[in-house]
Amino acid sequence: MIVGIVGLGLIGGSLGLELRSQSITVLGVSRREETCEIALERGIVDQASTSLSLLAAVDVIFICTPLDKIRETVEQLIPYLQTSAIITDVGSAKGIIVEECAPLWQNFVGGHPMAGTERSGIEAAERGLFKDAAYVLTPTERTPTEAVQAIEAILRSLGANIHHCTPAIHDRAVAWISHLPVIISAGLIESCLGETDPNILELAQELASSGFRDTSRVGGGDPHLGAMMAQYNHQALLRSLFQYRQHLDHLIKQIEQENWDSLEKCLEKTQKRRSHFGNFSR
Amino acid sequence: MIVGIVGLGLIGGSLGLELRSQSITVLGVSRREETCEIALERGIVDQASTSLSLLAAVDVIFICTPLDKIRETVEQLIPYLQTSAIITDVGSAKGIIVEECAPLWQNFVGGHPMAGTERSGIEAAERGLFKDAAYVLTPTERTPTEAVQAIEAILRSLGANIHHCTPAIHDRAVAWISHLPVIISAGLIESCLGETDPNILELAQELASSGFRDTSRVGGGDPHLGAMMAQYNHQALLRSLFQYRQHLDHLIKQIEQENWDSLEKCLEKTQKRRSHFGNFSR
Repeated sequence: MIVGIVGLGLIGGSLGLELRSQSITVLGVSRREETCEIALERGIVDQASTSLSLLAAVDVIFICTPLDKIRETVEQLIPYLQTSAIITDVGSAKGIIVEECAPLWQNFVGGHPMAGTERSGIEAAERGLFKDAAYVLTPTERTPTEAVQAIEAILRSLGANIHHCTPAIHDRAVAWISHLPVIISAGLIESCLGETDPNILELAQELASSGFRDTSRVGGGDPHLGAMMAQYNHQALLRSLFQYRQHLDHLIKQIEQENWDSLEKCLEKTQKRRSHFGNFSR
Repeated sequence: MIVGIVGLGLIGGSLGLELRSQSITVLGVSRREETCEIALERGIVDQASTSLSLLAAVDVIFICTPLDKIRETVEQLIPYLQTSAIITDVGSAKGIIVEECAPLWQNFVGGHPMAGTERSGIEAAERGLFKDAAYVLTPTERTPTEAVQAIEAILRSLGANIHHCTPAIHDRAVAWISHLPVIISAGLIESCLGETDPNILELAQELASSGFRDTSRVGGGDPHLGAMMAQYNHQALLRSLFQYRQHLDHLIKQIEQENWDSLEKCLEKTQKRRSHFGNFSR
């Protein structure tokens, strides 16, 4: 099997490292010549190019570009590909992507690995990134079963935990646990910066420690990626944001009314049920 | 010098370990007999008791109890103490505490170490907890200079970075970086739990990874401590919450209006300026 990867960043690069360790031939495409060179040096790919024409003979292509480049990548790939080739992507929103790409290519399977580190770019690529990580596939009724099975076989070889759902269900779920936190967290940083008393702002900046660090982390992430996830998942994100605002208002009301028992009960619930999310204990 | 510590949890216990390593005599008081035994076994204190009468001869007392026990501890200590004894506390809110305690005891110095780990209790006590950590003192105009200097000398020996400010400035600053994040983060967990479609909630729980973990961490903390910090700092917390809600509304508006450039500019600002907070780079 020959696998093509478009976009050699953290996800694309890590995928290349894994697949090559399984003796699969990996062909990589990056917009930047320098990234191609690093990919070859690090053994992430067998061959690299800045041209999609490199991928003419591949069986499966992972599009690992940012969200706003997925559709155009599919369009630009089409002239080169065999009709049997399977395309999948790794974008963090699926509704718009599947809606745009599935009509362009029969064997398109939407995908989203819940794998990441705080680092990005090809330098951050690493083995084991997908091991035990959730990986969502969002085939539609029209997606050929064989295409889905081919992607699944690759994902199983990476050790990923495969989930299936519709693009809409995916988008609503990740809005809660991935996209809403970005906006909440950015709002925290923004509102602190809005403090008009310079003495208070300066002291706040000096005193900030682990609580602020963790709560503000995703709001301090890549601005373009953040704006794109909002753009590509704005309906589900808005739905979550409106519901979040209601819960926030309820918490504010308890504090305004000095209803400490009720606030403590809310915090008991959040403490107890936080452990239902993900595979982390704290 | 003899130092007394009331409340042998993470902060009180860590303080005892540090001070004893400097050959200072440390007397510890805990409500629980079992905690006294652990404190003795671990070398956190020279003597331990469940009775405040143990502290009759000490020079300096650190009250390391929860916020709602500080005032009553001062009241209960008074009959035993020499008038020269200095009392300080480690509560995370200072306005109400100083207002309540300073009139009770002349040599009272409000304090707040910005030191903590995710663990709590005497088992979590460790050397080095205060090293390079911010430690805020909030003396008032009436606090004797000698009392402040005596506390400062101890804090310097711990390697802490000492800050001075009024109780009000302290409370507004920590509302931003410590108390607001708890409510924001609890609201995130609560609103996710409010998802009414069980398929989406289940998938969200399965997919939750580092972004959710970090943003939800402080909202999943000790419920009683959370409710107390809200109670003891509710004015500054509400002030921050109202401003946060305005910034959140502004972010929501940009998403509703599909104004992605403007959203990206906001996120550029939060990314760039997050590094002004604390001594962490990410």
